[in-house]
Amino acid sequence: MEQHFPKGNKTRIVIVGGGFGGIELAKKLRDKEIEVIMVDKHNYHTFQPLLYQVATGGLEADSIAFPLRKIFKGQKNLTFRVAEVNAVQPLNNCIQTSIGSIDYDHLVIATGSTSNFFGQDQIQENAMPMKSIPEALNLRSLILQNLEAAQIAPDPERANELLTFVVVGGGPTGVETAGAIAELKKHVLKSDYPELDIDKVLIYLIEGSPRLLGAMSPQASKKAHLFLTELGVKIMTEARVQSFDGNMLSLGDGQQIASANVIWSAGVKGVVLDGLNPEDVVRGNRLKVNEVNRVDGYENIYAIGDVAAMITEEFPNGHPGVAPAAIQQGRQLAENLLNIIEHKPTSNFKYKDKGAMATVGRNRAVVDLHNIRFQGVFAWFTWMFVHLMTLVGFRNKLVVFVNWVWSYFSYDRGTRLIIRPYHKKVPHEPAKVD
Amino acid sequence: MEQHFPKGNKTRIVIVGGGFGGIELAKKLRDKEIEVIMVDKHNYHTFQPLLYQVATGGLEADSIAFPLRKIFKGQKNLTFRVAEVNAVQPLNNCIQTSIGSIDYDHLVIATGSTSNFFGQDQIQENAMPMKSIPEALNLRSLILQNLEAAQIAPDPERANELLTFVVVGGGPTGVETAGAIAELKKHVLKSDYPELDIDKVLIYLIEGSPRLLGAMSPQASKKAHLFLTELGVKIMTEARVQSFDGNMLSLGDGQQIASANVIWSAGVKGVVLDGLNPEDVVRGNRLKVNEVNRVDGYENIYAIGDVAAMITEEFPNGHPGVAPAAIQQGRQLAENLLNIIEHKPTSNFKYKDKGAMATVGRNRAVVDLHNIRFQGVFAWFTWMFVHLMTLVGFRNKLVVFVNWVWSYFSYDRGTRLIIRPYHKKVPHEPAKVD
Repeated sequence: MEQHFPKGNKTRIVIVGGGFGGIELAKKLRDKEIEVIMVDKHNYHTFQPLLYQVATGGLEADSIAFPLRKIFKGQKNLTFRVAEVNAVQPLNNCIQTSIGSIDYDHLVIATGSTSNFFGQDQIQENAMPMKSIPEALNLRSLILQNLEAAQIAPDPERANELLTFVVVGGGPTGVETAGAIAELKKHVLKSDYPELDIDKVLIYLIEGSPRLLGAMSPQASKKAHLFLTELGVKIMTEARVQSFDGNMLSLGDGQQIASANVIWSAGVKGVVLDGLNPEDVVRGNRLKVNEVNRVDGYENIYAIGDVAAMITEEFPNGHPGVAPAAIQQGRQLAENLLNIIEHKPTSNFKYKDKGAMATVGRNRAVVDLHNIRFQGVFAWFTWMFVHLMTLVGFRNKLVVFVNWVWSYFSYDRGTRLIIRPYHKKVPHEPAKVD
Repeated sequence: MEQHFPKGNKTRIVIVGGGFGGIELAKKLRDKEIEVIMVDKHNYHTFQPLLYQVATGGLEADSIAFPLRKIFKGQKNLTFRVAEVNAVQPLNNCIQTSIGSIDYDHLVIATGSTSNFFGQDQIQENAMPMKSIPEALNLRSLILQNLEAAQIAPDPERANELLTFVVVGGGPTGVETAGAIAELKKHVLKSDYPELDIDKVLIYLIEGSPRLLGAMSPQASKKAHLFLTELGVKIMTEARVQSFDGNMLSLGDGQQIASANVIWSAGVKGVVLDGLNPEDVVRGNRLKVNEVNRVDGYENIYAIGDVAAMITEEFPNGHPGVAPAAIQQGRQLAENLLNIIEHKPTSNFKYKDKGAMATVGRNRAVVDLHNIRFQGVFAWFTWMFVHLMTLVGFRNKLVVFVNWVWSYFSYDRGTRLIIRPYHKKVPHEPAKVD
């Protein structure tokens, strides 16, 4: 019983994905004489920059997620649907979804990105990604389960494996995750696990390029490196992961690390829908778009945010996969779509770089704002302020703020609960659980 | 590779279950010259009285749970283990668990209770229990999924089924759950689901006896009945559920209610361990204990809290399954165990009734404190104050308080997220997911 959602008289814009870009676009279409349908597989927006705090027990999952219906409360021209989108049918101007086919006049793909394992199936089976709330919660469960298992491991080698954490990828997520685990070790594990020899807890951060935070200034990289080293993280640069079987990780140069906890933050790839011209899919699995975010070769299909590659001289690989780029593209596309509908000229997208920042731990962060670069305590407060302000929803801001203040004074992380134990799936199926 | 955890020189007390009773007992044994092992299948304590707020999107799961390791931080004579307990071997003085066998000198069963479906397998397969955090989260997912499904149901009868909520059992949990769903309907659904005809959302509360809150005063029952009716809940007393196939609920008198959301709070039963004398298991699946909480026929096995039935003239069915009874028994047993170990005389348990309360919704609660009974706004504040104070952990108190204050002023419930979609298991397996 395939359902069909035909359009009415008004022009219909279908937006796939309720991330930063999709939300901004939809909001800017408020009160316009068009019909907007937003489709997302979740009923909530995820604030991805704080996923690592959920994974390391610092924040509740619910405080970094926000119900999409609530974001669009009172927006009369918008309909929200929870559905998986399976494919686009450009010739029929419709998308095939888990709830039926939905017609569109204009389609905007704002599906974001997912972990990129670069075709290494064995690593994908065994390492933990951290790009969604269920993934972050699985990682939290795994870390806590392995700590429990280490307490009773009869074999000291097995215990060491369980107590060794390897974060792969030295971008902001990898740096923040390694730092958070190091703080967990320092402030929480000692008192939570009195039987534990805390020196046995090892944390590695592995980066393929010569420096951490490659997209930031060398000064930021250097300082992040120093901060992590101070927290006891062992950093390996110019190191590539060759294989990981669940217990042993091998690097390109033959080194091996025995670990049961490998966290994958080495790269992302766009989430592309089936049915589009394969030639549109470029580096990083992104969709090649022109300067109004229109997908090459289509009249009425657009892509914004992480999944879009707007290749320009300044950005030969497209814009960075960060929230401000998605938000700016969403905003610009809203304007352009309204112009297109009214047969007015469009304006090309112009990216305003907002700078970059990463936090390593308590009082330790690095911030690059064009020519102003700073690190340390003030950077840390800046990081917290910016993230709090970007979080969607007043309740979320409040709860996260309360948690951070509380953690600051108590040196504690409140939510170290194994609510849904993580069970590895059978081999040769991805280890992800939803 | 079965592990064995033999005891050392000190007397070892093994406590199974980190609920109210188990925690109180373990804390009172602090700094004594004995060894305490606490075993729980979860790494956290669950504040059960607020599970219904998790299920209805009012609170995060993490703010009503508390890591057990943290509760016992610094308690040097206590070891905590996450494990399922499979059976007791009274002759060998050990318990069989998922991590191996653990010896004991004294065993305390503080396993609490679970939903009682009174042998009705079909209902158990299809109705939603709400006695643990995973169960409460499943229920939250199901409610939100069914609301989404109702928006697109092509058949109006199917839509009505999806929008009908039936709470079975008119005790405090049933009353509180029905009230919370009614408030969700009133304050949230209207704005979240603009396509929805709010009058189609029906809430039933079904109770087998002639009145709600049977354990409280007739005055409280009457007022709770009135409050719920004001909120639009349809109350059916002296009604028994005969069957529920997932879409249609049938009552004993032949009436039928089409509903896809049946919430089961009609009763609980003790969680008994295998290996004990079957004659010790009495009404409600509880273990018959004497007045020092020793299980009948055993020298060194005790039971406290919901799983214990201390049958006296005043309490012919044992004490009520409430937190104060479990806490008081835990406290008394700690004293008695220390006396038993030192060959001193024991004291019989004496229950101090703390009264009872239930909340129906905003400004509406009922409180019975012996001779003082009150209902309404002041009762509601009393209810909130008592629950906040009983919550374990300062962070939890703070986060719950922030959520409640925020909900009070915004008329909103913050956490309506489908983080792990609920999928019904194959027929003839219990529908529960962990």
